[in-house]
Amino acid sequence: MKAAILVQQKAPLAIAEITMPDKLDVGQVLVKVHYSGICGSQIGEIDGAKGEDKYIPHLLGHEASGTVMDIGPGVRHVKAGDKVVLHWRKGNGIEAPTANYTLDGKKINAGQVTTFSEYTIVSENRVTAIPADSDLEVAALFGCAVTTGFGVVENNAKVKIGEAVVVFGAGGIGLNIVQAAALVSAYPIIAVDLHDSKLALAKEMGATHLINSSTTDARQAIIDLLGPNGVDAFIDNTGQPKIIEMGYELTKPQGRVTLVGVPKKGNNINIYSLPLHFGKGLSGSTGGEAIPQTDIPRYHQLYRTGRIQLKNLITHRFTLDQINEAIDGMRAGTFAGRCMVVMDQ
Amino acid sequence: MKAAILVQQKAPLAIAEITMPDKLDVGQVLVKVHYSGICGSQIGEIDGAKGEDKYIPHLLGHEASGTVMDIGPGVRHVKAGDKVVLHWRKGNGIEAPTANYTLDGKKINAGQVTTFSEYTIVSENRVTAIPADSDLEVAALFGCAVTTGFGVVENNAKVKIGEAVVVFGAGGIGLNIVQAAALVSAYPIIAVDLHDSKLALAKEMGATHLINSSTTDARQAIIDLLGPNGVDAFIDNTGQPKIIEMGYELTKPQGRVTLVGVPKKGNNINIYSLPLHFGKGLSGSTGGEAIPQTDIPRYHQLYRTGRIQLKNLITHRFTLDQINEAIDGMRAGTFAGRCMVVMDQ
Repeated sequence: MKAAILVQQKAPLAIAEITMPDKLDVGQVLVKVHYSGICGSQIGEIDGAKGEDKYIPHLLGHEASGTVMDIGPGVRHVKAGDKVVLHWRKGNGIEAPTANYTLDGKKINAGQVTTFSEYTIVSENRVTAIPADSDLEVAALFGCAVTTGFGVVENNAKVKIGEAVVVFGAGGIGLNIVQAAALVSAYPIIAVDLHDSKLALAKEMGATHLINSSTTDARQAIIDLLGPNGVDAFIDNTGQPKIIEMGYELTKPQGRVTLVGVPKKGNNINIYSLPLHFGKGLSGSTGGEAIPQTDIPRYHQLYRTGRIQLKNLITHRFTLDQINEAIDGMRAGTFAGRCMVVMDQ
Repeated sequence: MKAAILVQQKAPLAIAEITMPDKLDVGQVLVKVHYSGICGSQIGEIDGAKGEDKYIPHLLGHEASGTVMDIGPGVRHVKAGDKVVLHWRKGNGIEAPTANYTLDGKKINAGQVTTFSEYTIVSENRVTAIPADSDLEVAALFGCAVTTGFGVVENNAKVKIGEAVVVFGAGGIGLNIVQAAALVSAYPIIAVDLHDSKLALAKEMGATHLINSSTTDARQAIIDLLGPNGVDAFIDNTGQPKIIEMGYELTKPQGRVTLVGVPKKGNNINIYSLPLHFGKGLSGSTGGEAIPQTDIPRYHQLYRTGRIQLKNLITHRFTLDQINEAIDGMRAGTFAGRCMVVMDQ
């Protein structure tokens, strides 16, 4: 079956026919992938943001939807025929060994979940069943973008009614952070990004104020809106030290800085730690601390009853063969919303 | 100055001219009262819900708005001329001694805050300044109904996006619990009450489902909507054991029962405690654990920007002379929304 493989850092993915193992191991689930999102963290992996990658060659991708084709011994939470979300946060079930894919007899590495392929063998605890009539394209977003974005607001930043929120970076996760901040009635919700197209989408998702930081001094614009220390929750999706330091400066004495974007190796922040003794918060998010088995049904119900917007977040669609084109566009930052790889085309 | 005094349990309040002390003590604040709400807990005090009352004769009331006329030594957080909210939760400043009011030379007791009088001497930590151009009638609600209702959702029940909430009892606090549940995008939000007029108001505040428990079996109606254990957060405003036990039964294994209504003395609940070991929560609220100095400005901003509804919660207005009429109506449960005592008429 066809898969996209990371064979070298900072190079296009190789598209190739790889071989799957004959038999599923304990806790493994074979899934036919329908839709896979591309997350900023895959761009980071390809570009080597965290340094050397000792797993090359390997598969990629961590948010998708699909249909269960078969299950290995011990799997109890899904069965053949189930529609599922594939996610990287651990949910119910077995943490299974990784699958042994090969290409011309050579091993291709893969984690407990990968999604840039027509089929995938994932660990039981990386799949969550959803109703059979779900919109499977939207469902892919529950693998990361939605659950992370909503979880950042609920579990990390713990945004309260009427608090002032700054969301720095309006990509797939940032837009869902904006949406979740609106769902909990934060005010104002200030979205900052380099691209007007992303800010326009942020407005659709509930941002009350927009700042284009390529043309405006974001720091001064936030001060003009809220005063020098008026931010309750500053959420950084960029991983850039200067922006994190700005957030630390602009938050209230009891405000919180939540780090979602991952910094490149060596990109240290420089802060005065005393305010941390008096109530200022600085913490990092791990996928919004999302709990797939409770969060996915909860958010999914809101989508089905028309209370949240997700379809409009998907602005670009590609086949698996076109995946490098999608990655190049994401790296350039010019796509407004999420890129979706459509496997069935 | 004129005040309403509790001189005997289960009897009308006495309206009389009482004498204020000549001088303010350390931390005391003299306030001209403009509007005072009447809370269910005052009905409880008058009716002796907690048993014998050793402070009789005493003043009453704990949510109001007014203007600061004078301040005692040491007061730093408000000054003469400030518009203020009077609240019973402790905020910034000094916890002052209570005031020495007299009637015909005999002492009339009062706590750190009372509001059923034309003027009142309150403790600095029971007043919070608000902008001079605030709607002072609405502002009175920030003394208890709004801050408690919103705090119950944020701090006690900790309602998350898309959770299923039951609000049992749609009085002044219950309606604000409904509103806050809507502000954090709970779904469904099921309001239960004996009176259709209160349910109609609950719908205005964001309830998605209404149950009149005088004509419908509420337990069965909730099961029909959510299944036998489908409630994430059950919030009781009645203090009635049968209702609390019902909430305990209908919540999910990881659900929470939050007790807001205070039970009468001797009204014990009877529950199987094992589910508490496995994640079910049962806890009581103390005024929503509200923090006046941060919560009042935060919610007030939302009112000023049109993001919450409060004016429509005030459905009945009385003068201080008519206060027993208001109390009788509240006891009968026939008023849809909050009763306001208007002092300036």
